[in-house]
Amino acid sequence: MANETTKANETDITGGWLDVSAPLHNGMAHWPDNQAFERTHTLAIDRGDAANVSAITTSVHNGTHMDAPAHFIPGGNGIETLPLTATMGPARVLEIHDPESVKPDELKPYNIQRGERILLKTRNSPRCWETDEFVKDFVYISHEAAHYLAEVGIQTVGIDYLSVGGYFKDGAETHHALLGAGIWIIEGLNLTQVQAGTYELLCLPLKIIGSDGAPARALLRKIE
Amino acid sequence: MANETTKANETDITGGWLDVSAPLHNGMAHWPDNQAFERTHTLAIDRGDAANVSAITTSVHNGTHMDAPAHFIPGGNGIETLPLTATMGPARVLEIHDPESVKPDELKPYNIQRGERILLKTRNSPRCWETDEFVKDFVYISHEAAHYLAEVGIQTVGIDYLSVGGYFKDGAETHHALLGAGIWIIEGLNLTQVQAGTYELLCLPLKIIGSDGAPARALLRKIE
Repeated sequence: MANETTKANETDITGGWLDVSAPLHNGMAHWPDNQAFERTHTLAIDRGDAANVSAITTSVHNGTHMDAPAHFIPGGNGIETLPLTATMGPARVLEIHDPESVKPDELKPYNIQRGERILLKTRNSPRCWETDEFVKDFVYISHEAAHYLAEVGIQTVGIDYLSVGGYFKDGAETHHALLGAGIWIIEGLNLTQVQAGTYELLCLPLKIIGSDGAPARALLRKIE
Repeated sequence: MANETTKANETDITGGWLDVSAPLHNGMAHWPDNQAFERTHTLAIDRGDAANVSAITTSVHNGTHMDAPAHFIPGGNGIETLPLTATMGPARVLEIHDPESVKPDELKPYNIQRGERILLKTRNSPRCWETDEFVKDFVYISHEAAHYLAEVGIQTVGIDYLSVGGYFKDGAETHHALLGAGIWIIEGLNLTQVQAGTYELLCLPLKIIGSDGAPARALLRKIE
């Protein structure tokens, strides 16, 4: 019996969690004026050192990450002020069909409630993570939709590419509307393997004091 | 009633979790031959940019972090191969009184079982995190204790300063014994606010492909 229990545990090494974090690797896509992700070896066993020791250099807005109010609001709080409950708890994954941006008309039928954690799965998930090139025409949250979410008063919003705002438009406006309303932002989720529905969200950013953002690891588990 | 519920939620912004992650900030202690943690502003609102955008440079072994087999084992797995269950689930925090190192004789009375997640709270927690200077004489896991834990076959071990191995001795030996036995290592925990006992552990490292380690966020919640 003990062996069977051990085997059962060994076969489920995910604990039922889906990893929706973008893998960090050299050459990966990044916002054009941001620092690229780069890992180098400070020490290397094959150079005669006792250990392999890597150093990384990266924008805090590469891969899966969170934005803090300080990203767009002068004097705004850093990422260390994130309440853990903002990114730990039930979340709804909504499937967005608009190929350009998230718009209020597509959100309204979902009857979004105050305090909700909302993750937006767009065509970005299957399209943008397949390439290391930065995809400029990713689906973003229009400033109208950002104002709608701010008015509803959701707690947290997540999107499946590098920014809630667009590359060509609604960059600053969308961030201002969301961060200004106290909404916490998760960017860079890969929701390819995730279907619309209700999940338990677990997203933990690094605790970087005073930072406008931080890389994060994010997981989802289906709530039956 | 809705208001009362909202208030109740707002008062517990930790969800009952204790954050045992070391805050990342410029000037913090680091292993002498490792890259220091440094955050700089790539873009800054007070320089006329639209946003604040930070970049970080850091050893993957600064602050709270995990070690992968690749840290000491040539050809060993990178941190992206961590099974999520290794750092998500019940863990025992043991209080270690030896001021020099963790030794088998202090561990044996705890009757440690195969598959356990063991976190070692030493005098490092109240002593080492109070300063930004690197503390060389921190309490480490002696190579004898590492071999004992390997023989028992625990799943995960955590320690409350930057390395499971000592600065003056048992650096490579302790890492080899633990990583060679397939034990996952969490280093740089700050257990100052944590008492010995059983907790739910949640430790999520960044998913850095092929890396010998990765910075992590780590939380504990008491199991009653």
